[in-house]
Amino acid sequence: MAATQLVNPDLVKERQNAAFSPEHLTYFLYGGPEKTKRKRFLQNLVIEGVKKLGVKQYATVSREEQYEQALQKYAYLVDTERQLGITNSTDKALLHEAVFPCESFPYILQYAAFINPFTMLASEEQKAKWLPLMKNFRLVGTYAQTEMGHGSFLRGLETTATYDPSTQEFVLHSPTISSIKYWPAGLGKTANACIVMAQLITKGHNYGMHAFLLQIRDLDTHQPLSGITVGDIGSKFGLSANDNGFLKMDNVRIPRNNMLMRHSRVLPDGTYIEPKNDRLMYGGMTSIRTDVVGVASRRLCIAVTIAIRYSAVRRQSEIEPGAGEVQVLDFQTQQYRLFPQLAAAYATTFASTTISAFYRTVSPHIERGDLQELPMLHALSAGLKAYTSWTCADGVEVCRLACGGHGYSEASGLPKAYVDTTAACTYEGENYVLILQTARYLMKCCRMLAEGEQVPEVMDFLRPSTSETSRLDARLVMGDLIQAFAHRAARMTRDAAQSMQTSIVKGENPGQAWNSNSVQLVAAAKAFTELHVVRVFAEAVETMRGSLRHVMESLWRLFAVNNIVSSLGDFLVDGYLSTQQVSLLEPAQRDLLKELRPDAVSLVDALDFPDGVLDSALGRWDGQVYEALYDYSLRSKLNEKQVLDAYLKHQRPFMESQWKKHAASAVTSRL
Amino acid sequence: MAATQLVNPDLVKERQNAAFSPEHLTYFLYGGPEKTKRKRFLQNLVIEGVKKLGVKQYATVSREEQYEQALQKYAYLVDTERQLGITNSTDKALLHEAVFPCESFPYILQYAAFINPFTMLASEEQKAKWLPLMKNFRLVGTYAQTEMGHGSFLRGLETTATYDPSTQEFVLHSPTISSIKYWPAGLGKTANACIVMAQLITKGHNYGMHAFLLQIRDLDTHQPLSGITVGDIGSKFGLSANDNGFLKMDNVRIPRNNMLMRHSRVLPDGTYIEPKNDRLMYGGMTSIRTDVVGVASRRLCIAVTIAIRYSAVRRQSEIEPGAGEVQVLDFQTQQYRLFPQLAAAYATTFASTTISAFYRTVSPHIERGDLQELPMLHALSAGLKAYTSWTCADGVEVCRLACGGHGYSEASGLPKAYVDTTAACTYEGENYVLILQTARYLMKCCRMLAEGEQVPEVMDFLRPSTSETSRLDARLVMGDLIQAFAHRAARMTRDAAQSMQTSIVKGENPGQAWNSNSVQLVAAAKAFTELHVVRVFAEAVETMRGSLRHVMESLWRLFAVNNIVSSLGDFLVDGYLSTQQVSLLEPAQRDLLKELRPDAVSLVDALDFPDGVLDSALGRWDGQVYEALYDYSLRSKLNEKQVLDAYLKHQRPFMESQWKKHAASAVTSRL
Repeated sequence: MAATQLVNPDLVKERQNAAFSPEHLTYFLYGGPEKTKRKRFLQNLVIEGVKKLGVKQYATVSREEQYEQALQKYAYLVDTERQLGITNSTDKALLHEAVFPCESFPYILQYAAFINPFTMLASEEQKAKWLPLMKNFRLVGTYAQTEMGHGSFLRGLETTATYDPSTQEFVLHSPTISSIKYWPAGLGKTANACIVMAQLITKGHNYGMHAFLLQIRDLDTHQPLSGITVGDIGSKFGLSANDNGFLKMDNVRIPRNNMLMRHSRVLPDGTYIEPKNDRLMYGGMTSIRTDVVGVASRRLCIAVTIAIRYSAVRRQSEIEPGAGEVQVLDFQTQQYRLFPQLAAAYATTFASTTISAFYRTVSPHIERGDLQELPMLHALSAGLKAYTSWTCADGVEVCRLACGGHGYSEASGLPKAYVDTTAACTYEGENYVLILQTARYLMKCCRMLAEGEQVPEVMDFLRPSTSETSRLDARLVMGDLIQAFAHRAARMTRDAAQSMQTSIVKGENPGQAWNSNSVQLVAAAKAFTELHVVRVFAEAVETMRGSLRHVMESLWRLFAVNNIVSSLGDFLVDGYLSTQQVSLLEPAQRDLLKELRPDAVSLVDALDFPDGVLDSALGRWDGQVYEALYDYSLRSKLNEKQVLDAYLKHQRPFMESQWKKHAASAVTSRL
Repeated sequence: MAATQLVNPDLVKERQNAAFSPEHLTYFLYGGPEKTKRKRFLQNLVIEGVKKLGVKQYATVSREEQYEQALQKYAYLVDTERQLGITNSTDKALLHEAVFPCESFPYILQYAAFINPFTMLASEEQKAKWLPLMKNFRLVGTYAQTEMGHGSFLRGLETTATYDPSTQEFVLHSPTISSIKYWPAGLGKTANACIVMAQLITKGHNYGMHAFLLQIRDLDTHQPLSGITVGDIGSKFGLSANDNGFLKMDNVRIPRNNMLMRHSRVLPDGTYIEPKNDRLMYGGMTSIRTDVVGVASRRLCIAVTIAIRYSAVRRQSEIEPGAGEVQVLDFQTQQYRLFPQLAAAYATTFASTTISAFYRTVSPHIERGDLQELPMLHALSAGLKAYTSWTCADGVEVCRLACGGHGYSEASGLPKAYVDTTAACTYEGENYVLILQTARYLMKCCRMLAEGEQVPEVMDFLRPSTSETSRLDARLVMGDLIQAFAHRAARMTRDAAQSMQTSIVKGENPGQAWNSNSVQLVAAAKAFTELHVVRVFAEAVETMRGSLRHVMESLWRLFAVNNIVSSLGDFLVDGYLSTQQVSLLEPAQRDLLKELRPDAVSLVDALDFPDGVLDSALGRWDGQVYEALYDYSLRSKLNEKQVLDAYLKHQRPFMESQWKKHAASAVTSRL
């Protein structure tokens, strides 16, 4: 950060008062001083680079301009990556974050959901033919699975791919309006190709969902090919720079070899060859979901940085009458709103690091066909995707509301952060659908334990415990708090399993029983996921030392206590916590708020977001918020003319018609 | 609703299955068959009228066009009102809702915060001079109070009005950047005048906040007057058609008589005359807050109509494998998300009706100087404004998320409903500030009771109760459920009062004690407000009969049970509810979901929103959602050209630079 900036004195004071070194925490987060230095170099480089492109601030331009600027920025990003020879995913993520801060862009699926699934689904021959075109942007693509009428239930998709042996072609077709492909990112205007998921029909038999490579636009003119109707789906809550699209296929013929044939195949005569193992496809989805955990967590980190810095600068109302207006961060209610979000930001950061590491460990095993860890990885990544996208979206919105009126302005950067985060509750697997997959795994582990089988170590909390009451006392020992989350998750899981059993005994079939207990199952899976997050946050804290350990342990404790207090019934209902133990928690929560107050600004400084990523008048490092807000306002498009055409066209004639009709007296131009 | 429309068969079936007559419920809500007929006539009239104006759907145009269209629609609205001779507020609200469905408009404060406060604050002479100009739109105005650096704390405002006896003028001045007026609706481009709140300084003494009438633009040219810098504040999360503005005054001189002089005055020589009673000003704010309760409630009613109809049409996944995809409304999790919002929609509707009626009863008393009921009205309207804006904003967002991907599209109408509702958490008194005012009243009533004084009947729940345990049993008797809310509110209020006392004994001054217990105070005030809502909903239900009573009682019970379950700790912690009683609640909740399932669509139909108000592809009466969604997409601005200029300018050169650089093989335009 530039040392020469004039920094708001309240922020200067906050930074002087911290009891720990934020720089050390930054090193912890980014993997040491060297990697931190590299992070800063990379992010600052592209932030400056983007400025030189002459693009305007996202919030100040129309959607069409946002789209155009995203194309421009992406070209710059890829050039920069290639010039610097950047290939590792950490560096790439940091560059993306700095070029597209809480913004989507049309090419977002080029790797994640075009090249990657293609690589997993295509034969060696197909890869040799098409991968170079994809990697060098001759083909710009996306993944066309969801349809207007169909989302996460794959078997419900209506698009058909009917094999015609006479020409050795597949005929891709959208038979109904509800079968139109809808939502794929970049599909509307940008992509010239896509992977289409369709019901494969050959020799009169439907073999279910398969993947096909479809060219949709001419590679030179970019005009849609014959039989293809394609376009942008229109304005959305967010993701505005992305041309999420629709695609209607009217008996479009593609060569047989455009079916991706690594796992299953159709021979020239139309004979269908089955895949050896279709579980191999899970890996890719799991990878995207672990990415979503990271993205959601970063958004909350951004929002909490903005809200806490602004709350240190903003002065509003008095605590003692006549003693002057105080920093709003001194209000207990403001701390109560923001500090749990700060704790959640760190908690989900560690959850993200841990699940990514787990994925990197397990995915080579899966690649070589060892699927032992896949169910656990799948359950955990699904649960974490749902839990973190919910937690972070809610948290971003709490931060926005805590910034009062100015939080509602796009100048704050918070609306943009929210719409981007809440989208993650729906895309890549709707959260209820996903968390119920986690619940399914919990039920499976219950059954395994009941039958005396081994479960992964992480699931050991499900074993019957000797203690049905907590040892928690005023010290709020970490282990005792963790044990409370473990006890709750185990009890809720067992209760859900018991209810399932009862439903089945009553005569419901397994599908009905699942549905009629799904609220309980969701609750159990959330409790399990929260236990996991509480644990990994604790494990990270336990590796820290000194003053850093001290402040982070308090933050962890706030996370734990806050989550217990907000679901207090869960812990009281079976008597695990006593009334007396519970009476310790709310005062402890308030004491933790007070204790964390002096370190709050440094705790967000340590997250180390440059101003270019925050993109916020309120969250600036230097705290010069009103100057920035005013500057933002001056750039409003409505201010381009002093008297708008709309005034002459609509306002003036209306006003005249009223005052002339009603014989208003004064017609002077000055009162 | 047009009977000739082809209605989705699932919706037809839902409507046939209802156990009650939605038409009777509609009559109940709108005051009988005649008033319902009039409501429909008025809303349909202007919906058709707006269509003829040729304006485009809000979500499909730029912010500048939204603003322009709002000017156009407002002129049409006022003309229609005058043609029909409409003066009563119910009719006006219905027309506004139909012309600006979940949309703001630039003239929104002309009556609510320009003419109304002017009427309350101006002398008779001033009213005679200026009211005709205001009512006939010669003056278009707004209310300029908040500044960049200052919100709800009036004494903190920096704008000064210094009296100059030599010219008998006030000099209005914005001394700093933080003193620039910021946020007033319509101020940026539309208003040519406003009421300015400023520190009155005369004879070297500051007499605090006073109101002044300031002309800001020439009445003929609409150019800003000398010394005035005014403009739009830029894009926001929502309220896009509104030109919320900023205003900087550089020693602007206005005649002495532009100070509004009903209550306090400045004589020509600069002598200040004090007001007799400054509490008279509360009335106006209370009126706007009761309006906010109604607006927030209507938004939730709209959202839940959209989400429940769509959930009846949308089919997704199977409950029994192979049995076909089911209506998503059949999933327990979907019912669990939506039905509590349906209950909250009705609960807040009745809360709104009741507080408005209370306001209408009390306000003539206040007008004639009898202020006995003012504290209660103030506490209740502040609490309800906060409670309903929180509840409804959260509820709208739950509805949006429950519509999956399509809920994220602006075509759903749900993003628009959300951004409009969440704004109500901040404007007209930030919710935490307001709910703490309710808490202050609760503390006052506690003191009064302790000192043996009378409190209003509504506050009788605070009297010590004989029973410290609940009589609740499996029948879930309404009175027992209400008693649980009363007990909780009383206990939390007394606990908060006790904590305040403890803080003061420990040596905190009253301001510090208030702050260090404010989280508890907020919780107590929320519990009190929720008790009130539970009660007024119950009272409404108790006037119903037959099948309507039956279904509405179930809906009420769901509201009550759901609110207990989501704050279960509050009811368990002091043993008021036993573990055994609590074990009844979750199964009861699930049974109520099941019971309400067949009536859900009719319960939203009864809210009687025409399609023009829902403005939603998903919520349409006829359920033809995919056709509407596709139609919406085709109108996206990005689809105006098949190949965008942005492609030629940025995408094509980028792609070429990549594939040529990396010598990609194929350069054919077809794969």
